[in-house]
Amino acid sequence: MGSLQKDHELENEMVSVTNPLDSEELRRQGHMIIDFIADYYKNVEKYPVRSQVEPGYLSKRLPESAPNNPEPIEKILQDVQEHIVPGITHWQSPNYFAYFPSSGSIAGILGEMLSTCFNVVGFNWMSSPAATELESIVMDWLGEMLTLPKPFLFSGNGGGVLQGTTCEAILCTLVAARDQVLRNIGRENITKLVVYGSDQTHSAIQKAAQIAGINPNNFRAIRTTKSSLFGLTPDSLLSTIKSDVEAGLIPFFLCATIGTTSTTAVDPLGPLCKIAKKHSIWVHVDAAYAGSACICPEFRHFLDGVEDADSFSLNAHKWFFTTLDCCCLWVKDPSALIKSLSTYPEYLRNKASESKLVVDYKDWQITLSRRFRSMKLWLVLRSYGVTNLRMFLRSHVKMAKTFEELVASDKRFEIVVPRNFALVCFRAVPSVIKLR
Amino acid sequence: MGSLQKDHELENEMVSVTNPLDSEELRRQGHMIIDFIADYYKNVEKYPVRSQVEPGYLSKRLPESAPNNPEPIEKILQDVQEHIVPGITHWQSPNYFAYFPSSGSIAGILGEMLSTCFNVVGFNWMSSPAATELESIVMDWLGEMLTLPKPFLFSGNGGGVLQGTTCEAILCTLVAARDQVLRNIGRENITKLVVYGSDQTHSAIQKAAQIAGINPNNFRAIRTTKSSLFGLTPDSLLSTIKSDVEAGLIPFFLCATIGTTSTTAVDPLGPLCKIAKKHSIWVHVDAAYAGSACICPEFRHFLDGVEDADSFSLNAHKWFFTTLDCCCLWVKDPSALIKSLSTYPEYLRNKASESKLVVDYKDWQITLSRRFRSMKLWLVLRSYGVTNLRMFLRSHVKMAKTFEELVASDKRFEIVVPRNFALVCFRAVPSVIKLR
Ligand SMILES: Cc1ncc(COP(=O)(O)O)c(C=O)c1O
Ligand SMILES: Cc1ncc(COP(=O)(O)O)c(C=O)c1O
Repeated sequence: MGSLQKDHELENEMVSVTNPLDSEELRRQGHMIIDFIADYYKNVEKYPVRSQVEPGYLSKRLPESAPNNPEPIEKILQDVQEHIVPGITHWQSPNYFAYFPSSGSIAGILGEMLSTCFNVVGFNWMSSPAATELESIVMDWLGEMLTLPKPFLFSGNGGGVLQGTTCEAILCTLVAARDQVLRNIGRENITKLVVYGSDQTHSAIQKAAQIAGINPNNFRAIRTTKSSLFGLTPDSLLSTIKSDVEAGLIPFFLCATIGTTSTTAVDPLGPLCKIAKKHSIWVHVDAAYAGSACICPEFRHFLDGVEDADSFSLNAHKWFFTTLDCCCLWVKDPSALIKSLSTYPEYLRNKASESKLVVDYKDWQITLSRRFRSMKLWLVLRSYGVTNLRMFLRSHVKMAKTFEELVASDKRFEIVVPRNFALVCFRAVPSVIKLR
Repeated sequence: MGSLQKDHELENEMVSVTNPLDSEELRRQGHMIIDFIADYYKNVEKYPVRSQVEPGYLSKRLPESAPNNPEPIEKILQDVQEHIVPGITHWQSPNYFAYFPSSGSIAGILGEMLSTCFNVVGFNWMSSPAATELESIVMDWLGEMLTLPKPFLFSGNGGGVLQGTTCEAILCTLVAARDQVLRNIGRENITKLVVYGSDQTHSAIQKAAQIAGINPNNFRAIRTTKSSLFGLTPDSLLSTIKSDVEAGLIPFFLCATIGTTSTTAVDPLGPLCKIAKKHSIWVHVDAAYAGSACICPEFRHFLDGVEDADSFSLNAHKWFFTTLDCCCLWVKDPSALIKSLSTYPEYLRNKASESKLVVDYKDWQITLSRRFRSMKLWLVLRSYGVTNLRMFLRSHVKMAKTFEELVASDKRFEIVVPRNFALVCFRAVPSVIKLR
């Protein structure tokens, strides 16, 4: 926020407006925030994991309207402690066992802070070259750690991008796939397009299809059973596709999952991709949670078959030590995304984009503006290093294995499906419960 | 990341894995980051605003793959300074005059840090009541500061939500509007739907239409001229709608802008809404940049007519002192969003949602997972207070006015369109340039 020195009346008024980015004030208040945050983590284990408040609790505690006058940070932090903390479900508590682990880390938090500090709006290369280039670099790094097939990497003419969430990653790839088909068969056929997943696939796919204008009747949540450990079977996919084709519909998108939300089931990528390819179906592989573990050689086999998929994503904010949001998406054909998602109005034109030597990530995602997300991934990779990261992930799996053994040895409980990663699915045995 | 005490071998391995959320280590490294950030702001004015690097600069400076071993934060911060800072376009520099001001502030930065620290994944009320409730509260506060008509506020059965960007806000409302129409006329008519904006409307609308499956031929960027100061005229909207209807098409969405990207033109909301209403068209008002100024009574008239619109958004990350991303969206009929964007799989079911007493913001947006964005808006409102915020905004407008006067008094330049807010559009007068 610049200043102009001319008009006296103007200057006088300016004086009373504090510089909202004064570096020394930022330092002073920043150190206070750090102590607040460190104290939060010191105590996080003591809070009840799930907030105990009732709906509407906060409006009873806060004023009816925004304050007219400034309030000091001390007072605000006191209110955060008194009124906000009790209303938080503590996702970072070691006692939190709902959903997938929310694996924040010091490196992830600091990376996010740096990204916040630079506050760049990195829609294209020129708007902040470092934001774009660091992202491409760390996505190739991580792709190599996962031994993703070369065609997914920039070095193999594919490439990676950091989205906010898997919902966005799926929506982007689904739209790219949709348009690829519609360019061939004509837009009027949009109502015939069919999307495939299993009844275990995350609801992100249904929502993406709905947003992209796919007929809700044309979303197939193919039934899975315990006999296939809740994986999508090639047979059931094939027969569903066949009956859709017979009905005059047009299959175009399959979301296969490595590590489903409910039981970490693994869909058999190889056979599914084979079927999909025959029907020109785009295959997206959603490894939101389990993908991270695949940087360990002993877990990499879960990704076998990914070489025949079109896109692959995992959430670094689930099990790779960044804070929300950080979804890593790789595609073999970035131009498919770009054809669907690019806009190039007058005010975004620039020489670097013209030159085609640079990546403009705005054309790989839903939104124009984007945060410097690679900073947190870079800090995680550097602060911990590949060896340590593998050890972390293994230790989580090992804890789960130990827990699984304990449960299995107790007659009151049963393991519902065998454990693949660090999620253990168990339940109380109904008959035993009744006996007591 | 909990710990299990049983298996000796397991424990031994765990010891060598440092706790990634150790509070004292977080404190130590956190204080270092704050000093780094404060120093960045102390020096930000000295950096060339636009990064001077060439495409591909960073891959020459960074290693080919992720490090195997951990690296200390000191070394990482040194690399940020040496290799990242030169590649950044300094959006926060007082010398930055591209696009709209990116108005980060201490309060905005600290709010973001708190949100990062809690790292809640606030998709529904239960997943962190405070995140949902604070958001609803600050959206009503800000709505009242803008004197938005009651039907946009929770207290009037509408409501506000924090999206990441305007792109998302427009996509959500457009999808809601699309489905409202399709429920009446049948999905097969999706190819007939028409979206309206002007040739000055932000490209976000075109992209949203494209993602939502609207036929690209049915996107109208209605021409504006200097005679209407680049505002969309009611006549041109009406005649475009008429010819579309005659052609058998179905108008359904209009994006009107208060403060366009190129010249801060203001579309005449009242007359446009009147026409739209007659044709059952959903009107979204995009005040991404200029909306913030409307908390000052003397600028509020720019929003006149908003009472007849269906939704309204502004970017707090543009001119309301939060960091990216923070788009404030208000709608009169949240149920329209919910009908289009809700999913309710088994793993998200819970009593609070069942009770219908709470807001589940996942159903108001594209993604499932969401950050605690209200924290930064709350900190901005409290740290500065309404009176000061108005003063800031006024001082920016006043600076622009002074600059406009200086330019106008210089024969070498001309003002292209009269200034509305803090953007001055001027150019060198070609004839004068030639004479020299
Ligand atoms: C397999 C799977 N896919 C997708 C998601 C949704 O991820 P996001 O919230 O990033 O959209 C989840 C969340 O638990 C998941 O388990
Ligand atoms: C009028 C207007 N609308 C929308 C946008 C895009 O906002 P976002 O990046 O939040 O999608 C801009 C950005 O400059 C804008 O000026």
